Amino acid sequence: MTRKILVLNGPNLNLLGTREPDIYGYDTLGDIEARLRERGAALGLEIDFRQSNHEGELVTWIQEGRGTVVGGMINPAGYTTTSVALLDAILACGYPVLEVHLSNIHQREAFRQKSLISTAAKGVICGLGPAGYMLALDALDGLTAK
Amino acid sequence: MTRKILVLNGPNLNLLGTREPDIYGYDTLGDIEARLRERGAALGLEIDFRQSNHEGELVTWIQEGRGTVVGGMINPAGYTTTSVALLDAILACGYPVLEVHLSNIHQREAFRQKSLISTAAKGVICGLGPAGYMLALDALDGLTAK
Amino acid sequence: MTRKILVLNGPNLNLLGTREPDIYGYDTLGDIEARLRERGAALGLEIDFRQSNHEGELVTWIQEGRGTVVGGMINPAGYTTTSVALLDAILACGYPVLEVHLSNIHQREAFRQKSLISTAAKGVICGLGPAGYMLALDALDGLTAK
Amino acid sequence: MTRKILVLNGPNLNLLGTREPDIYGYDTLGDIEARLRERGAALGLEIDFRQSNHEGELVTWIQEGRGTVVGGMINPAGYTTTSVALLDAILACGYPVLEVHLSNIHQREAFRQKSLISTAAKGVICGLGPAGYMLALDALDGLTAK
Amino acid sequence: MTRKILVLNGPNLNLLGTREPDIYGYDTLGDIEARLRERGAALGLEIDFRQSNHEGELVTWIQEGRGTVVGGMINPAGYTTTSVALLDAILACGYPVLEVHLSNIHQREAFRQKSLISTAAKGVICGLGPAGYMLALDALDGLTAK
Amino acid sequence: MTRKILVLNGPNLNLLGTREPDIYGYDTLGDIEARLRERGAALGLEIDFRQSNHEGELVTWIQEGRGTVVGGMINPAGYTTTSVALLDAILACGYPVLEVHLSNIHQREAFRQKSLISTAAKGVICGLGPAGYMLALDALDGLTAK
Amino acid sequence: MTRKILVLNGPNLNLLGTREPDIYGYDTLGDIEARLRERGAALGLEIDFRQSNHEGELVTWIQEGRGTVVGGMINPAGYTTTSVALLDAILACGYPVLEVHLSNIHQREAFRQKSLISTAAKGVICGLGPAGYMLALDALDGLTAK
Amino acid sequence: MTRKILVLNGPNLNLLGTREPDIYGYDTLGDIEARLRERGAALGLEIDFRQSNHEGELVTWIQEGRGTVVGGMINPAGYTTTSVALLDAILACGYPVLEVHLSNIHQREAFRQKSLISTAAKGVICGLGPAGYMLALDALDGLTAK
Amino acid sequence: MTRKILVLNGPNLNLLGTREPDIYGYDTLGDIEARLRERGAALGLEIDFRQSNHEGELVTWIQEGRGTVVGGMINPAGYTTTSVALLDAILACGYPVLEVHLSNIHQREAFRQKSLISTAAKGVICGLGPAGYMLALDALDGLTAK
Amino acid sequence: MTRKILVLNGPNLNLLGTREPDIYGYDTLGDIEARLRERGAALGLEIDFRQSNHEGELVTWIQEGRGTVVGGMINPAGYTTTSVALLDAILACGYPVLEVHLSNIHQREAFRQKSLISTAAKGVICGLGPAGYMLALDALDGLTAK
Amino acid sequence: MTRKILVLNGPNLNLLGTREPDIYGYDTLGDIEARLRERGAALGLEIDFRQSNHEGELVTWIQEGRGTVVGGMINPAGYTTTSVALLDAILACGYPVLEVHLSNIHQREAFRQKSLISTAAKGVICGLGPAGYMLALDALDGLTAK
Amino acid sequence: MTRKILVLNGPNLNLLGTREPDIYGYDTLGDIEARLRERGAALGLEIDFRQSNHEGELVTWIQEGRGTVVGGMINPAGYTTTSVALLDAILACGYPVLEVHLSNIHQREAFRQKSLISTAAKGVICGLGPAGYMLALDALDGLTAK
Repeated sequence: MTRKILVLNGPNLNLLGTREPDIYGYDTLGDIEARLRERGAALGLEIDFRQSNHEGELVTWIQEGRGTVVGGMINPAGYTTTSVALLDAILACGYPVLEVHLSNIHQREAFRQKSLISTAAKGVICGLGPAGYMLALDALDGLTAK
Repeated sequence: MTRKILVLNGPNLNLLGTREPDIYGYDTLGDIEARLRERGAALGLEIDFRQSNHEGELVTWIQEGRGTVVGGMINPAGYTTTSVALLDAILACGYPVLEVHLSNIHQREAFRQKSLISTAAKGVICGLGPAGYMLALDALDGLTAK
Repeated sequence: MTRKILVLNGPNLNLLGTREPDIYGYDTLGDIEARLRERGAALGLEIDFRQSNHEGELVTWIQEGRGTVVGGMINPAGYTTTSVALLDAILACGYPVLEVHLSNIHQREAFRQKSLISTAAKGVICGLGPAGYMLALDALDGLTAK
Repeated sequence: MTRKILVLNGPNLNLLGTREPDIYGYDTLGDIEARLRERGAALGLEIDFRQSNHEGELVTWIQEGRGTVVGGMINPAGYTTTSVALLDAILACGYPVLEVHLSNIHQREAFRQKSLISTAAKGVICGLGPAGYMLALDALDGLTAK
Repeated sequence: MTRKILVLNGPNLNLLGTREPDIYGYDTLGDIEARLRERGAALGLEIDFRQSNHEGELVTWIQEGRGTVVGGMINPAGYTTTSVALLDAILACGYPVLEVHLSNIHQREAFRQKSLISTAAKGVICGLGPAGYMLALDALDGLTAK
Repeated sequence: MTRKILVLNGPNLNLLGTREPDIYGYDTLGDIEARLRERGAALGLEIDFRQSNHEGELVTWIQEGRGTVVGGMINPAGYTTTSVALLDAILACGYPVLEVHLSNIHQREAFRQKSLISTAAKGVICGLGPAGYMLALDALDGLTAK
Repeated sequence: MTRKILVLNGPNLNLLGTREPDIYGYDTLGDIEARLRERGAALGLEIDFRQSNHEGELVTWIQEGRGTVVGGMINPAGYTTTSVALLDAILACGYPVLEVHLSNIHQREAFRQKSLISTAAKGVICGLGPAGYMLALDALDGLTAK
Repeated sequence: MTRKILVLNGPNLNLLGTREPDIYGYDTLGDIEARLRERGAALGLEIDFRQSNHEGELVTWIQEGRGTVVGGMINPAGYTTTSVALLDAILACGYPVLEVHLSNIHQREAFRQKSLISTAAKGVICGLGPAGYMLALDALDGLTAK
Repeated sequence: MTRKILVLNGPNLNLLGTREPDIYGYDTLGDIEARLRERGAALGLEIDFRQSNHEGELVTWIQEGRGTVVGGMINPAGYTTTSVALLDAILACGYPVLEVHLSNIHQREAFRQKSLISTAAKGVICGLGPAGYMLALDALDGLTAK
Repeated sequence: MTRKILVLNGPNLNLLGTREPDIYGYDTLGDIEARLRERGAALGLEIDFRQSNHEGELVTWIQEGRGTVVGGMINPAGYTTTSVALLDAILACGYPVLEVHLSNIHQREAFRQKSLISTAAKGVICGLGPAGYMLALDALDGLTAK
Repeated sequence: MTRKILVLNGPNLNLLGTREPDIYGYDTLGDIEARLRERGAALGLEIDFRQSNHEGELVTWIQEGRGTVVGGMINPAGYTTTSVALLDAILACGYPVLEVHLSNIHQREAFRQKSLISTAAKGVICGLGPAGYMLALDALDGLTAK
Repeated sequence: MTRKILVLNGPNLNLLGTREPDIYGYDTLGDIEARLRERGAALGLEIDFRQSNHEGELVTWIQEGRGTVVGGMINPAGYTTTSVALLDAILACGYPVLEVHLSNIHQREAFRQKSLISTAAKGVICGLGPAGYMLALDALDGLTAK
């Protein structure tokens, strides 16, 4: 049976590819989704790909994954350093969640460097651009294999 | 005439009873609501019981209580330490609001210990589990009695 | 052709005029909107005036301004000091955004003094009450004139 | 058989009712003791009510409660933020101890806000005036019921 | 009768237009003075425009404004973050003083971001270049109108 | 009628004159008491001179002065930087209390420099050796004169 | 032969008696000078009384006292917390200098509480209003007596 | 032609598999090397796998990779948070270096959480155990493909 | 002639052996005293063994040792990190005092790790359980031998 | 069978007896080794005594002790406050390691006071000079006795 | 043509040679000036040597050097750690300025160690006494040679 | 007789001239050595020039200079801010050591700005590129002349 993977994208990531390309690159979120779906198909993983600017909606989606997905990844974007609500949702959801950042947050402004989400995530991948999502998918494949 | 009390629950509290029971216990939010209604009835207090994962929705509910409720209590959960918006809503609402936490936040991770909400709340009760909601109701009964 | 200006108001500003008037004054948000529209008309500026308690909705509105407005102003209120999501939206939107505060935030509680939004805003005006909105409109008129 | 509850009051609380009534109210410590005894009688709880200006005496009283009381509450007053000795006594005593503050310490000077005692107390109630003692008694009744 | 406005410029602003134009622009202080005088004339405001590299001289000028000016604005430049003497003079002068910065100080080095002067100024305008002086004049016109 | 002045000395001051004379000098506490009595007699002030190593005893003495003394001075010694209990007693006692230190605490180890007691004391005199007690007596004479 | 005492007053103290009287009282600097001269005459001390808004001028005056005065006192006002130049002048001058503050700086804003000058001053007197100058004169009389 | 990848392991990693397996797992460094070689062979990548307890030796190896390897990965272990020398070597080496940690360092002691190496590394992968090395190899394959 | 050694035990150590044995072990204070006396006898050292919950009493005992004991050791327990009074007593007593902790305080909560007492103690022994007292006795034997 | 004890000495300790004798005393490292061997012989303990200026070499020696020594002591000297590598080696080695300092590090410069090594060491002895090594040997004898 | 070098000396340096010679040495400022002139003559450099206690005067002198000097050096003394005005003047002056300190400021009190001026100076020389001025002159000779 | 000067270069300086030339310039370490030897010959100074990536090796070289060199200079590079071992070696070596940095470390990343080595070095020269080594040699010539 196909295993489902939840892929969540935080605020402003819907602008990807058009916003500050020197930091975030030229790929759009649609490009990333397509590549994830392609690789997911090869691995027998169904991709549930979403984006929201609302912290509360991201929290709800993580909760709803309980019982329906085997693993998740999140690029928390602007909620990375402040959202205890996301952190708590990840702690409570019962499936492994990886944290992905397109840029290397440790080389950016001080207020972006200390992720709260890392306190709850199974693992963290950052600085590798869209490829980071692919690596996270591979890692989830390994973590959720029976 | 029946006095109405607003009872607000923040993000992830809808998972209560299923999430980390060693910290939060086995009672569900429904269990707590039922006990509050029962005790409210005895005290002549109507209970308006709500939960949201959205900071903005909690803010709106506090605002809407102006003129319709005599007092409120809030378990701000993941918004405890960062939400200036909730703090401002409580400052502006004009009725007493108590802050309730199921666990003793002072014995948890450092980032959970300094509540911003306490800056605006009339009083704080923490560490007493679901019983804390009952005590808050009794306190509001006293504070809003004519 | 009329230039459009986006005017965003953050959480609890819908209570303006009724909440802590010693800090925020007696004008309502409607009063401010009316005066902005009047002055905007004189300057050939259309005013798109909004308020939300939701951080995510404010982020979305800033994004949607791309291609439709020539400039914006925001009173981020309770999201001033914590919202990286708003900061990122302003960085990405491509039009100048001014930050406005009714009160002088530097004379209030410590947790209100360090604005994250200022890191992205073109300029900041604070402490001048509703007149600050008018000054921001004049400044945007100058910044967006052809 | 009657269960005994230890009620400890820290330094300067003997002046209650005469000192800074805008912060602490007009009730004397005797008033609070009387109401506790009355409510304790109704609940089948014996009240052992004490006050001391000496940190060491408070420590000794908590120790002596081992084996004789079923629960305790303490208003540590001036020893709230600095007394590791009281903290250790509460950790060692073997019965649940609640921390009570008449005022909301989170709205006072910075040096009063971070309680060390909360690190050891079962729960905390603050900002509710003398009613806080009554709520603590109710909570202890529940915690120590057989 | 003409109302007089004091306009003070702190250290190194006499070099304006020749120093780091990418930060401060190409206008000279003389250009700004001329525009202020022109707009002041239209508003019935006399402009007393001064610059000094001496903290003590700026303090004295603010003091001397007592009884002779109806309002003031100051670009404290290098004394922004350290001068308690200027802060005290503004607190003592009895007329409203606005703080103006050409650049957005919140986007510069950390040591430039925390203004002491804001603790005493009626309002703050920053990041809008020479136009900030004009806006401050308009604001003072409103604040000092009879 | 003679006005009574309370003079309190904190922990280890009973060793004065024998302990680290390069910091504290060669006068004993008895020498200081004698000179205070002599000068008090000239001013019509009765001296109630005490020393204790117990924080709680110092608190009690300050409390007991209510109604019996017109003013007080305290050299809090080792309790200077940590005793909220002494601070609260001084706030509650209703008569002016001056803080005296023999040495200039601002020139000693960092942990001695930030006095909590100064938050409650009417005034502070430090660095002037035993003469500081005499100056404090003169000041209290002025403050308590009818 | 008459001993000369230097009395220095920092920025804005020339406004004394007219500025924030609830903090600084109603005495003018002239009143204080007159009382110091009267008491100085009785003690055989000549008073050299000065005020400046210029840090550099205060530094120069302290330097010039070398060889001409036997002692000094300074109310550094706005230069209290930041002036290393004044600190160095006091360290270098070779005669004892006392630091005087009219208000109790430890009960004011945080940025006023940590005096750099105390690192060099022989002793400190604060919170006693104009009487503090008199006490400092008495102390200097004792310190400089032959 | 085969591309060479440098794989560096910092202090104590030679004990892997025998040390604190609840944190680091049961795989030995030899196991990881074998799997890397196998996957490297598939990708046409030669693996240069090394371990040292000496900071200086690790620095030298990174330098020596200049001109001989196309990319590198490093698990800096105990030198993660303090080694400016490693950071500088990575900045100077001219080929991309990824940082790998077996455990999620953000969930460990505070002194392990702030990596200096991340300031220079192209990207960071942590918390995924030995699989993290494989993901890093895949990422380097992508980054160094012609 | 027999040399006397003072052995002081701070608050809650009277509960030793019954309190948190995983941290402090199963030996009682009486067990430790007995072993110290036995070893003291072998070394020609008389043991004066005491415990108090009162900071002031510990201060007094250290003072009283002047002239009667040749050396001392103290387990300051809950007063370790806050007692300037104990620190001053040790500085003033004139005989060497060693600081002993049963547990390794550097592996406990942050608030227990920075001992003020170490600033005055001759040496420190921690983490070795009751054996630490024996080692301290041996060290004092060496330090006080003629 | 003889039990072996590893004794490690960090950087610059090879200069002992010639370097800053007011801090470290006149004994050389050879003197200490000789006394340890003598006492070790009496206790049936073989001493493996080493010194290195290389952090990596000390790490390797601790690792090599696994399976060959029953206990160890280390004077980490200049690596005390920064070496996570040494800390990790001690955590991984599986035998008890004591930390010894000749001087009382808590009475030296701030940057020497917070030992990282203490986070992993079984116990700590400091301030007792070369005698500290002897006490550590006695303690290891007790800890490793069968 | 002779190149002119500006040499500025900050507050209290006019006392050099008479003030704290153990820190600053016995050379007077005149001695240093003479040696600089002598060496300047040999290098074809004219020396413009000045001292002021006024921050504003130092700022003005740096500004006036624009177009008249080829390089400068400054011993900012008491203005080292606080003067943004001097920092800005150096940034704006357009010629290289070296920072010189007689003593090694990194070995003095904490408040003297963090120079703001270093943020703008081309280079820094400290701890070498009057010779530091000579080295700075040699360096400026090299930096300003054609 | 020729005086010998030790010149030590820390980690990665062997890459000089090839690494980040905008920061460090185009001179190689060999270029600097050659110029030092030339100038040393003129001054009668023999140059012992070395580079190492190993902290321990640098420590050893400083130690070995005792009795063989008259002075030293060190560019500690990546060990500047963390190496207590180097600091201790310099304190112990008995000859003057100057600290040299090619770039102005105060204008670089925060983690590079606070040198520990400056706590022990006789003087510091930074920001002057390779010329800084020459100036240091001249300074050592003066410091070690007979």
